[in-house]
Amino acid sequence: MKLQVPGFVAGAVAAGLKKDGKNDLGIIFSEVPACAAGVFTTNQVQAAPVLLDKERIKSGRCQAIVANSGNANACTGRQGIEDAEAVARAAATALRIPEELVLVASTGVIGQPLDVSAIGAAMPKLAGHLSPAGLYDLAQALMTTDTFPKTASKQGRISDKTFTVAAVAKGAGMILPDMATMLCFVCTDIGAEPDLLGQALKDAVAASFNTITVDGDTSTNDTVLVLANGLSGLNLKVAACAATFQKTLNEALFTLALQIVRDGEGATKLVSIRVKRASNQGDARQVAYTVAHSPLVKTALFGEDANWGRIMAAVGRAGVRINPDTIDIYFDDVCMVKNGQGCGREAEAAAVRVLKTDRFTITIDLKLGSEGATVHTCDLSTDYVRINANYRS
Amino acid sequence: MKLQVPGFVAGAVAAGLKKDGKNDLGIIFSEVPACAAGVFTTNQVQAAPVLLDKERIKSGRCQAIVANSGNANACTGRQGIEDAEAVARAAATALRIPEELVLVASTGVIGQPLDVSAIGAAMPKLAGHLSPAGLYDLAQALMTTDTFPKTASKQGRISDKTFTVAAVAKGAGMILPDMATMLCFVCTDIGAEPDLLGQALKDAVAASFNTITVDGDTSTNDTVLVLANGLSGLNLKVAACAATFQKTLNEALFTLALQIVRDGEGATKLVSIRVKRASNQGDARQVAYTVAHSPLVKTALFGEDANWGRIMAAVGRAGVRINPDTIDIYFDDVCMVKNGQGCGREAEAAAVRVLKTDRFTITIDLKLGSEGATVHTCDLSTDYVRINANYRS
Repeated sequence: MKLQVPGFVAGAVAAGLKKDGKNDLGIIFSEVPACAAGVFTTNQVQAAPVLLDKERIKSGRCQAIVANSGNANACTGRQGIEDAEAVARAAATALRIPEELVLVASTGVIGQPLDVSAIGAAMPKLAGHLSPAGLYDLAQALMTTDTFPKTASKQGRISDKTFTVAAVAKGAGMILPDMATMLCFVCTDIGAEPDLLGQALKDAVAASFNTITVDGDTSTNDTVLVLANGLSGLNLKVAACAATFQKTLNEALFTLALQIVRDGEGATKLVSIRVKRASNQGDARQVAYTVAHSPLVKTALFGEDANWGRIMAAVGRAGVRINPDTIDIYFDDVCMVKNGQGCGREAEAAAVRVLKTDRFTITIDLKLGSEGATVHTCDLSTDYVRINANYRS
Repeated sequence: MKLQVPGFVAGAVAAGLKKDGKNDLGIIFSEVPACAAGVFTTNQVQAAPVLLDKERIKSGRCQAIVANSGNANACTGRQGIEDAEAVARAAATALRIPEELVLVASTGVIGQPLDVSAIGAAMPKLAGHLSPAGLYDLAQALMTTDTFPKTASKQGRISDKTFTVAAVAKGAGMILPDMATMLCFVCTDIGAEPDLLGQALKDAVAASFNTITVDGDTSTNDTVLVLANGLSGLNLKVAACAATFQKTLNEALFTLALQIVRDGEGATKLVSIRVKRASNQGDARQVAYTVAHSPLVKTALFGEDANWGRIMAAVGRAGVRINPDTIDIYFDDVCMVKNGQGCGREAEAAAVRVLKTDRFTITIDLKLGSEGATVHTCDLSTDYVRINANYRS
């Protein structure tokens, strides 16, 4: 699938915000004003671009997104808001569209003033070189500690018409449920009203980005935006379209979510933690996240050590009622723990074979009820520490 | 202060539980039956020795503690309980005291059967070589990933009489509020009834071990035991004694708690996170722990990077109401953030000088109310990951 959608162009340039001279500024432009919806960080400390977008998106319309890496424009006070507005204004001028149809996003270091004049200087060149294939360049320009750009493209078909969903994302560390240093922009040519589009986005985020975790930290800048320009001739208000679009959007965002975990800072493994037969869904999620966030579990995964005792200990401190004597734990199909006790050396040897792969599932069967939950995480490596200890230097 | 208390003897031997042949089995023995109290892990997965001790300590009496490292005897089912009882029985026989006056404790790998016959074989030699100065040997025998034994000794005086509190502990990783892979044994010659002694211990634990965190994990084995043999002629039921004893006990346990954080796996810095002017104490603790557990904050501390944005982000996701625009952040006396915004390059340079020390305080002033809380934590280093990835291998 090509990463492009009828009616959308994009591109990126180096504005000088990244020290290494790589591309750090990008635009997505819809040739016609699009219907827009967004989901933003739940962190109470919110970056200036988040505050600005939350206001602007109330109109339900947007024609361009400007995004930069290298600076988060967070904890920058009133000046930060003015800087975000100035970036939007520069893009609007270069693109010849109304200022209020521009949304902005930033990622990078917190607490430094944004270099607005560098961005302004780069804007004409950027706006002059947008292309239908430019979404990939934009994805690259968003990268901070990411090691590869995250992209997804899916199509849906309703009778003889086809719509496309193309999405890009960035995010490596600081990823947690309810999102985290994560930007995601979705372009689609479906037609929509803001309310339906917003609900579809919310549902897709719940089933994708909100089921992953890298380190349990959340960011001040998380933003997921969707622009729908209607050029496919299909519209969300038709029930069949809505169902197909939701499925397609879910798949696109889930693909991106797994790419983000796989690219977790220093990660060597993508591990799904699946909790079965909990008393209720809240409990299931709570247990899954407690295991997924446990530094002791995550370092054991890195060390390829089938140390299931650490999983038991994490389950036991999750803050939900459990019965240690009914718990089974599986590494893929290998039963490591039966009714709270280890299954012996042979099982351990088989589990180590699973651990040596880079993608597996740990299943925790609580045998208390009928609800379940799955979260996707990665291991905690020496490289995670190295990357984060030296991020700004 | 010598690490010894009138009427107590202790010692340690190598029973062969540790692969490296170091001491791994120890006893504390009170020459007269002592009043006893304990605090145990809140983890719902509880090791066999914890389950046994919780029953036995209901009598309020104890004469000996047997502790081993190298094996946690956790997730070992009915056999684990029988093994813990067998260890106590072997000690009781060797010490010629009633079996029910022996408490047990274990630390090490979870889920492996305890080698009871090795312990039984080592018991006569151990019981035959106890001495008043043996508490230090015991502290050494408890070590797993610890790099030094933790000990504390304090005296209190009431008119012409003196009492002593000597305590030993182990614990490096997995340390969190409400305790964690942590054993602590306190010997004192104060006289006491179980209720008063238990309350004093609870209060001291709340003010010491429950204010520290290394990695947010808690263990199946945490145990704090206090034995009070009354030989000082002083008794807790006298109000003046109770106050002095509480102060002395608090100091001893707080000293041990800081030693545990300082010896956090791979830790290079001991950092206190102090939250001021929160709306209430629960909020203050919540914010302090969220910052203290944040992997991004902890790796920045390791990297000596004054990345206050990560602290702001952690405060913002702590789940309590805050106002980002009133927050001040200090590194010792250096103001890094004033009303939610950075204080500039000079402040940052001064903060880096603080960060280069191995002991400092980060103060977060929320300016919302009048309550505060302090927790003590350490940085997250590449060695933490290395130690925990390879723990069992």
